[in-house]
Amino acid sequence: MMDIGTRRIFSEEHDLFRQSVRRFFQEEVVPYHSEWEKEGQISKECWEKAGTQGLLGVNTPEEVGGIGGDVLSTAITWEEQVYVNCSGPGFALHSDIVMPYITHFGNKEQIEKYIPTMTAGTCIGAIAMTEPGAGSDLQGIRTTAKKDGSDYILNGSKVFITNGYMCGLCLVVAITNPSAKAVAHGISLFLVDEGTPGFNKGRKLHKIGFKAQDTAELFFEDVRLPASALLGEENKGFYYLMKELPQERLIIAVMATASSEWMFEETRNYVKQRKAFGKTISNLQTVQHKLAELKSDISVGRAFIDQCLLLHSEGRLDTSTASMAKYWCSELQNRVAYQCLQLHGGWGYMWEYQLPEHSLMPAYSLDMEAATKS
Amino acid sequence: MMDIGTRRIFSEEHDLFRQSVRRFFQEEVVPYHSEWEKEGQISKECWEKAGTQGLLGVNTPEEVGGIGGDVLSTAITWEEQVYVNCSGPGFALHSDIVMPYITHFGNKEQIEKYIPTMTAGTCIGAIAMTEPGAGSDLQGIRTTAKKDGSDYILNGSKVFITNGYMCGLCLVVAITNPSAKAVAHGISLFLVDEGTPGFNKGRKLHKIGFKAQDTAELFFEDVRLPASALLGEENKGFYYLMKELPQERLIIAVMATASSEWMFEETRNYVKQRKAFGKTISNLQTVQHKLAELKSDISVGRAFIDQCLLLHSEGRLDTSTASMAKYWCSELQNRVAYQCLQLHGGWGYMWEYQLPEHSLMPAYSLDMEAATKS
Amino acid sequence: MMDIGTRRIFSEEHDLFRQSVRRFFQEEVVPYHSEWEKEGQISKECWEKAGTQGLLGVNTPEEVGGIGGDVLSTAITWEEQVYVNCSGPGFALHSDIVMPYITHFGNKEQIEKYIPTMTAGTCIGAIAMTEPGAGSDLQGIRTTAKKDGSDYILNGSKVFITNGYMCGLCLVVAITNPSAKAVAHGISLFLVDEGTPGFNKGRKLHKIGFKAQDTAELFFEDVRLPASALLGEENKGFYYLMKELPQERLIIAVMATASSEWMFEETRNYVKQRKAFGKTISNLQTVQHKLAELKSDISVGRAFIDQCLLLHSEGRLDTSTASMAKYWCSELQNRVAYQCLQLHGGWGYMWEYQLPEHSLMPAYSLDMEAATKS
Amino acid sequence: MMDIGTRRIFSEEHDLFRQSVRRFFQEEVVPYHSEWEKEGQISKECWEKAGTQGLLGVNTPEEVGGIGGDVLSTAITWEEQVYVNCSGPGFALHSDIVMPYITHFGNKEQIEKYIPTMTAGTCIGAIAMTEPGAGSDLQGIRTTAKKDGSDYILNGSKVFITNGYMCGLCLVVAITNPSAKAVAHGISLFLVDEGTPGFNKGRKLHKIGFKAQDTAELFFEDVRLPASALLGEENKGFYYLMKELPQERLIIAVMATASSEWMFEETRNYVKQRKAFGKTISNLQTVQHKLAELKSDISVGRAFIDQCLLLHSEGRLDTSTASMAKYWCSELQNRVAYQCLQLHGGWGYMWEYQLPEHSLMPAYSLDMEAATKS
Repeated sequence: MMDIGTRRIFSEEHDLFRQSVRRFFQEEVVPYHSEWEKEGQISKECWEKAGTQGLLGVNTPEEVGGIGGDVLSTAITWEEQVYVNCSGPGFALHSDIVMPYITHFGNKEQIEKYIPTMTAGTCIGAIAMTEPGAGSDLQGIRTTAKKDGSDYILNGSKVFITNGYMCGLCLVVAITNPSAKAVAHGISLFLVDEGTPGFNKGRKLHKIGFKAQDTAELFFEDVRLPASALLGEENKGFYYLMKELPQERLIIAVMATASSEWMFEETRNYVKQRKAFGKTISNLQTVQHKLAELKSDISVGRAFIDQCLLLHSEGRLDTSTASMAKYWCSELQNRVAYQCLQLHGGWGYMWEYQLPEHSLMPAYSLDMEAATKS
Repeated sequence: MMDIGTRRIFSEEHDLFRQSVRRFFQEEVVPYHSEWEKEGQISKECWEKAGTQGLLGVNTPEEVGGIGGDVLSTAITWEEQVYVNCSGPGFALHSDIVMPYITHFGNKEQIEKYIPTMTAGTCIGAIAMTEPGAGSDLQGIRTTAKKDGSDYILNGSKVFITNGYMCGLCLVVAITNPSAKAVAHGISLFLVDEGTPGFNKGRKLHKIGFKAQDTAELFFEDVRLPASALLGEENKGFYYLMKELPQERLIIAVMATASSEWMFEETRNYVKQRKAFGKTISNLQTVQHKLAELKSDISVGRAFIDQCLLLHSEGRLDTSTASMAKYWCSELQNRVAYQCLQLHGGWGYMWEYQLPEHSLMPAYSLDMEAATKS
Repeated sequence: MMDIGTRRIFSEEHDLFRQSVRRFFQEEVVPYHSEWEKEGQISKECWEKAGTQGLLGVNTPEEVGGIGGDVLSTAITWEEQVYVNCSGPGFALHSDIVMPYITHFGNKEQIEKYIPTMTAGTCIGAIAMTEPGAGSDLQGIRTTAKKDGSDYILNGSKVFITNGYMCGLCLVVAITNPSAKAVAHGISLFLVDEGTPGFNKGRKLHKIGFKAQDTAELFFEDVRLPASALLGEENKGFYYLMKELPQERLIIAVMATASSEWMFEETRNYVKQRKAFGKTISNLQTVQHKLAELKSDISVGRAFIDQCLLLHSEGRLDTSTASMAKYWCSELQNRVAYQCLQLHGGWGYMWEYQLPEHSLMPAYSLDMEAATKS
Repeated sequence: MMDIGTRRIFSEEHDLFRQSVRRFFQEEVVPYHSEWEKEGQISKECWEKAGTQGLLGVNTPEEVGGIGGDVLSTAITWEEQVYVNCSGPGFALHSDIVMPYITHFGNKEQIEKYIPTMTAGTCIGAIAMTEPGAGSDLQGIRTTAKKDGSDYILNGSKVFITNGYMCGLCLVVAITNPSAKAVAHGISLFLVDEGTPGFNKGRKLHKIGFKAQDTAELFFEDVRLPASALLGEENKGFYYLMKELPQERLIIAVMATASSEWMFEETRNYVKQRKAFGKTISNLQTVQHKLAELKSDISVGRAFIDQCLLLHSEGRLDTSTASMAKYWCSELQNRVAYQCLQLHGGWGYMWEYQLPEHSLMPAYSLDMEAATKS
């Protein structure tokens, strides 16, 4: 069990919650995960069980149908999923990226329609921002939603959509004012239900890792949306996206740090039992120094991320700090993955040790730009 | 087409040979490769066609049934396979690791039995050194060949065996003198034919990349071998292995360098067409500097490897230089893969760009030890 | 002025103390420092002024003659010295390395003899551990203190002794039991006064930086010491040294982090005014990304060090964490120094920008060993 | 003696020449160097002795008064100076940067006036390009040469001028057509003799290393120059500078590589005699691996630089390859310096081991820009 004994930010209540979360992942996720990897997605049942156990929408207010926990509690669900090394469930995206858009910018009807079912795990959420030709650069977005009476007609395609294949609700970013001077002033968000005519799900993408996570392409062909599908105000989408960005970056940073810890523990155990040249390789000085370097690197990152979590729980995490966290911790994860993989020798190249799963995460892009503003 | 215009070590004859090799890979390998990746191995036909075209045993003397080309010619086959980005065929191991053991240390009967069929591609070669508990550390070997009259009884298991699933001939490293003071003085090599009773092929291993290359576990259970299966002299195996090591390391280094070149070209093309933030990303200064750094790194490695190839073609490549080449170029490949993958953004994490294929290669281990001797 | 606004560990009282410390360094150190660099030492007056202002022995209890401040207060004196970029004064070593040995392990007479004058700055402290042939490896110590009646006769030489040239008191590590099985069980500490016959100060060493800090060689030739010069118990020296090590490592880590912050600020200002290729270089994307990387790296280190300071102020900083801090932050300092220097172009190689001062700090050695124990 | 046995580009004649060069540096430079470091310059006598021995203008054609050796011969003088670790003499700049401008672009009178005395070492050459506000960016140059009848009036100041304090001849880059659309089309080169009224030499700059090399600021105040002081054609200066750049970059790369080799040898010797923790530190596995990594890195760079030297001796070294060489080898030198310094522990921070001398060299700037063009 991952030791969190030296961390200072959690209360006893948090520790109890962590134990229940851990139990859920060990009992309801671990035993099925390799099967889900073959299928390229987890089961609907798993989502519903998570909902029943109160692990979805943890940080969503109770008044609107969420669990009503604090930021640190929902962060515990991010961490524990990593500590069991099961990347399949897209819970964090569902609970802490998609749901906040609805609670923060949705109207009463929208909140009542989606939040309770999302907390229950019967409706799975996704957000469709990235496009084939545009990456995470909003300026390059081509998807449009044209006014037709009081309806909108949505056209375009999206890619890299986590939960895309299983989603019941997809939040879609589209251009509503193509003649806006800056593209940022002409973007809106739409709530699109699965099954809406013209909304088609494409193939699941073939990734390096995250094999049980359904990452899909989505296609929108003359999808007719009623006015009630608009989230918040028209042309305010960019502002909403910017507002949620710090938490989205923080999730990545928190999971990258937990992943680094998991790999370190796994590798320390490996070198303690692996023999070569007549001795256990953990007795080799080069292996010991490498582990000491990794441990130092991870401990330093852990202190930073816990500070970020504390700031975020106080509502004080700014964009620049969140960008630094995402950038630095993604690089940490890649660095740790590479070294741990090398410490496994030839076995590191085999899937059964699951280190590749944690390697080669995208680290740069938009976030470096944001960090340069600081 | 990969430009080799600035290299100085090849003759015009080499260039012509390279064209024919390239044509072979483009016509006989590229079109089938993704199918082979699903099957976890290439076809027997491909091996035979390679034989027919004179691409197997290129550096094996004509007198014994090989093609009779020089070191640089066979190196061209290693490079061109990388330049078409098809890792499936285990030709280099077959031609330039397994065949040399037979031509260098085999007797007339053994040479006549194996070399012509291996040159023809009808008999595929493998070498079984690594064991589950021992890595590439020969001191940890547990497989034994016990004398029984003039026969030997082979018992043990091997892992990470390239061509292991398809091989007609497997060269097996085993202990023949368990009471030798140093394990190195009690090791022998055996030629084991497919179909010999007790020789069983296990599952193909699930690797990060090299998906069309059949890397297997092999099991030997009371396999009875005649005296004629012994390669060279009894208990001289370690000496034979050491003798062939420089070329084995060189192959890895040459392929790692070619892989770095391939990835660089691929990435340069990608950033030249990819748009973000309103311009082609190859116009971003950070992207330009990153490419310049990679190009410098690769050019420096290229100069070194060509020098190694020249030394080896003169019979002067020593173990320490070969170790440095393997270590440095494997790290180069991993460094280049990581940066190229990041330059692809989210797409880098998708299999279709095939960068993961080139990433996370084992770089250290035994070879660092050898390099420290310098 | 260095902004410490985002740090969470200091009280308002600390902030006020920081202001007075900063004023002292700006008024009493900065104006004289370049003169002191030429002389290779600071002035006696500066030590006494620091004493008068209450900046020496800040964390030494009031009851024994110190200032009675907490750990965070004395850490403020370490940081502020770095923030004015004046490496000359060896205050931290005097106050937080030498003085603790006396207060923790000295008897009443020793405490009364040294602490008040050290707090006043009239007696300067040094510690002589490292020897020419032994580095920081205590097993290699050759200096001996032989019993002669109730006296000891000290013989040996020491090197790299900060405050060595100006010291009034030198704490000397010597072997008292040469036949101890482990050298660690035969080592004692002695309080040696300047002017004791046979105690000679050699040349000041010619370092890369720290030019105003008197780092000296010390020689002990038949130095007769009374029994009262022994600190604590005979043969317990190693235990005392180990006990103080975490704080000694923490000082280095804290100063390295502050140094990184200073260099970053200095460099950010430089690139904002420096023009090249027709624009201010802070507008170049490569420069912006480099700064963002450095800022991230430093912010992460800052979070870790503040956590270490907090732990230490609670008496909970263990050896392994202190080792990681020293190792990681020294490396951070070297990394930042190198990049900042490169961002200064040719000017980085000139002393006037003082970046070399912060470069090339020893980072490994003993501390990696300690970190491997974790 | 630095072993060059594995290099392939030199003839026996080159080896003999190398021996005589080495003897010169060992006899005429090494014994005086530490004295020169204090003075901030070498002696006039040393220049003249170098001239007498035929070590200046080695690659300048015999017909115009040079020695008439090939590129590889003059490269030997660059390398051997590094191998004795004496950075004082600015021979390479004099012989292979300044002299080529005169032989390539000068007229008969200019060649006859300068080349023989420069070959003799009685006239020392410098080139004044960099300005305080402009770095190596020619677009930022402010020095002007205004036409006054057939004369020019030169005004401006220059900085970082190697040989600036001792020079008899200074090649000055100045603007002759301030209204040129691109600054590159309005720049000319002038030959300015020491003692010309208005040409004043400022202070020698205080550098990290290169203490015996006179790097100076130069001031030009209404310096009247006759038409005969113009080198080549008016407004063609930029073209001339570009033409010579590859060799200038190559010199830096060659010396950086030699410096890396020198540091490695020095460090290998150090760790072989240094004891710690009861054994010679060269027996520690971490030290052995570190050395193996450094040796690999340096060997790879050596192969590349020898290839560059060969290309250059054939007149085929292009700007992009020379830029990669300068960038990569400067980084190599800095990397090696840092690691070697760490391997020296505390001694690495002392001047007597002279590693700082080789550290922290500027590596980026203009050259990365050039490399991005490739």
